Order: sequence, then structure tokens, then C-alpha cells
Amino acid sequence: MGASVGRVLQGNGHEVLWASEGRSAATHERAQAFRDASSIRELVREVDVVFSVCPPHAALDVARAVQGFDGIYVDGNAISPMRAREVAALHPRFVDGGIVGGPPDEPGTTLYLSGAEAATIAALCSGSNLEPRVIVDASAVKMVYAAWSKGTAAMLLAIREVAQRLGVEEEWRLATPELAEPLARAERASATKGWRWIGEMEEIAETFAAVGQPAGFHRAAAEVYRAS
Amino acid sequence: MGASVGRVLQGNGHEVLWASEGRSAATHERAQAFRDASSIRELVREVDVVFSVCPPHAALDVARAVQGFDGIYVDGNAISPMRAREVAALHPRFVDGGIVGGPPDEPGTTLYLSGAEAATIAALCSGSNLEPRVIVDASAVKMVYAAWSKGTAAMLLAIREVAQRLGVEEEWRLATPELAEPLARAERASATKGWRWIGEMEEIAETFAAVGQPAGFHRAAAEVYRAS
Repeated sequence: MGASVGRVLQGNGHEVLWASEGRSAATHERAQAFRDASSIRELVREVDVVFSVCPPHAALDVARAVQGFDGIYVDGNAISPMRAREVAALHPRFVDGGIVGGPPDEPGTTLYLSGAEAATIAALCSGSNLEPRVIVDASAVKMVYAAWSKGTAAMLLAIREVAQRLGVEEEWRLATPELAEPLARAERASATKGWRWIGEMEEIAETFAAVGQPAGFHRAAAEVYRAS
Repeated sequence: MGASVGRVLQGNGHEVLWASEGRSAATHERAQAFRDASSIRELVREVDVVFSVCPPHAALDVARAVQGFDGIYVDGNAISPMRAREVAALHPRFVDGGIVGGPPDEPGTTLYLSGAEAATIAALCSGSNLEPRVIVDASAVKMVYAAWSKGTAAMLLAIREVAQRLGVEEEWRLATPELAEPLARAERASATKGWRWIGEMEEIAETFAAVGQPAGFHRAAAEVYRAS
């Protein structure tokens, strides 16, 4: 997702930097279109904006790694509104972001943005495949959006597992032909991306609990993705 | 559901009895087409088959109330396979049932049946709106079937609540137009039938736990229906 967002910004005429220090060969491969600032320390000296796009469990660590940066810090991660406030506390010029949709190599992805400088960030990608949308609480929208898509996929995987273990999988599939396609999709997605959704499900669970709604749906979903 | 099942059996030429003792005016109204045996004690003396169709939390109490009955006892309730075994222990001629679909006043409802005398029960409603289907584990199929329909409805209600409390309900609805119709359906259903689903969600949670899958989805769903 991060590399694809970088390409969008580059395509809009902005220079995109990355820091190769300590990163894998796969990341090198993905980042080859961008200028290598070598270290994060070096990178933050040169850029006006930092985009954090990473698995949610790493969001706070990434924010800490660039603490002291005085440009705009955009957290584009699937984190709870509470976690977003923790990140905001580290970066005075904080913009909360939430990406809904696949990597913006194609149209159909929205970048929700909130905060005093949200419009500045929106302008960076306007007219691109990453459609900016300035709203009141980007993290909240991301949480309730992903709560359904990834929460129901996990529930479906768990149901299939229960049906299998009780010896009624075939009968269940016969009774629910409308679930064949979503189940196949959930199986494919969890096999490749499930590990990244564990943290996201936990962020959603905490978001639910914070407003007095049951956290159990998404704690269970995290368990399913942990097992996948 | 019970009255509708009674009408199906009646329509197939069988005599249907009920016991009015201690029952509400609303139940009287629903049961008016059936012969009143007055008490349960009287009823079990006269009938060959007892059908239990009640909210799941009452299934065991109903089974206990007719203990000693020597005909076929059909439990048609949304109970876990473990609970079904508890009921089976009370009735030697036990047939496990699971109803999938609405009240069989119209076609499209399936009565799953399991057990040594399942075929006898299937014959009672063959050719009716209540389509019998003899399988290996009726309760298991009912559990995994309802896990999805009522589990996702509860999740959707919880998400709407979270979106509302975080002030992003409108934005969430804009981002998920495909959920408008299922949400409206979930709202209508939970307002009228939610209380009956609390026990069903708990039976499903126990079924999941029994085979090592997360119980949290349906414990959370029970919480949602408890609050509805």
C-alpha cells in the first residue's frame, strides 16, 4: 500500500523519498522508484510531509521513530481514534488519515483526512487514483468501514471451520449457496493478508469498547486471522 | 413458528394438540386451530409425537416438562449439538430437528432432522411447506446457518452504533451504500425478534467454543440483542 501511495504522489509531481536502512530486499524492490535518503534521520531533514502507511501494530513505533520532525505527519493507518490521538501527541502538525480500498494503482480508493492541515494533504493527491476526502474523524471512518468487511470475512472463516469440525460443511454449503463466493474471497485474502489484519481487528475492538459496544466480534476476528 | 408448524402437520392430515394450562391469551389465539388437551400431562397421554419449538433458552425446560413421554420427542429448536444431547438423554426416542427459514406458512423452510426415527418425522410433513431433510446432525447445521445470518445482523447493528457515537454515521453510510438494506432489515428484525435470539447466539457461541473456534462473535451478538 505504501509504495502505491508513493507512486500516486510521484505521479502528481511530488518527490518521494524513502529510507533503506535496515529494510528488506522486498522493500528495496517496492521502493525503487523513490529517492533513497538512506536513514530515517536523513529523510526527515529533507521532506515536508511524512506519510506513515504500515500495519497498525507498528503505527506508534513509526511515529516515535520520526519524533521531532516539524513537517506534516500523516498517519494513514488502520488505527483507533484513541491510538490516533497518541500519535497526534507526538507530532504537532498531525493529520489523521484512513485509506479505504485497495492500493491506489487503480481508481476506487479513498484517503480520508482529518485535522487542521488535512486540506494541504488532500491537495497533494487531488485528481489521482487516491481520492482525498476531508472529514471530521478519518480513523473512526476507517474503523467502522473495516469492521464489516474484515470482521465478516473472519466470521465466515470461523463458521466454515465449525461446520467442518462438526461434519456438516457440505450440508452447510448446500444451505448457503450465496456464501460460496464471499467464503472463497475470505480464504484467499486471509491466506495472504491475514497476519496484517490481526492488529487492525484489535484496533477495531478497542474502538468498539471505547464507546460501550461489544469488543468480542473483532477480538474473535483477530483470533481467526492469528490462526490463518 | 410453533403454530405454523402445527398448521403444516394439520394440513397433512394429522391431529394437532396443545396444552392451554398457564399459557397467555396470545398463545390461545395462535393455537385456536388445535385441540386443547388442557394440561401437558394430559397431552402426552394422547399424542404419538411431541414437537418442541420454543426459544432456545427454554428447550431443556420443555424437554423436562414431558419427561417420561414414550413417543417420539422432536426438538426443533436452535440449540447446540451439546444441548441437543442433553435433551436426548431425557427422551429415548429423540429426534433432533433444526428449522431453517421463516414460519412455514409459505414454501422455503427446511426442517433438518437427525436420529433413528428421523424418517418417521420427515414423513409427517412431506409435501408441505416445511420441507424435511434427514441429515447427520440437524442441530449443527442450524447453528452454522444461523451463525451467519443473525451474527452478521448483530455486527452491523453494533457498527452503526459505534459510527453514531463517534459522529461518523453519515460518512460511514455514504462509504457503504451496499449495507443500507441489510442494516434496515437488521433493525426491523432485532426490534421484534431480538430477545429470542439472545439464547440462540449463546448456543452458537458454545458450539464454536466446543470445537476450538472463537466464541466471541456470538457472545458479542448476544450482547447486541440483549440491548435491543
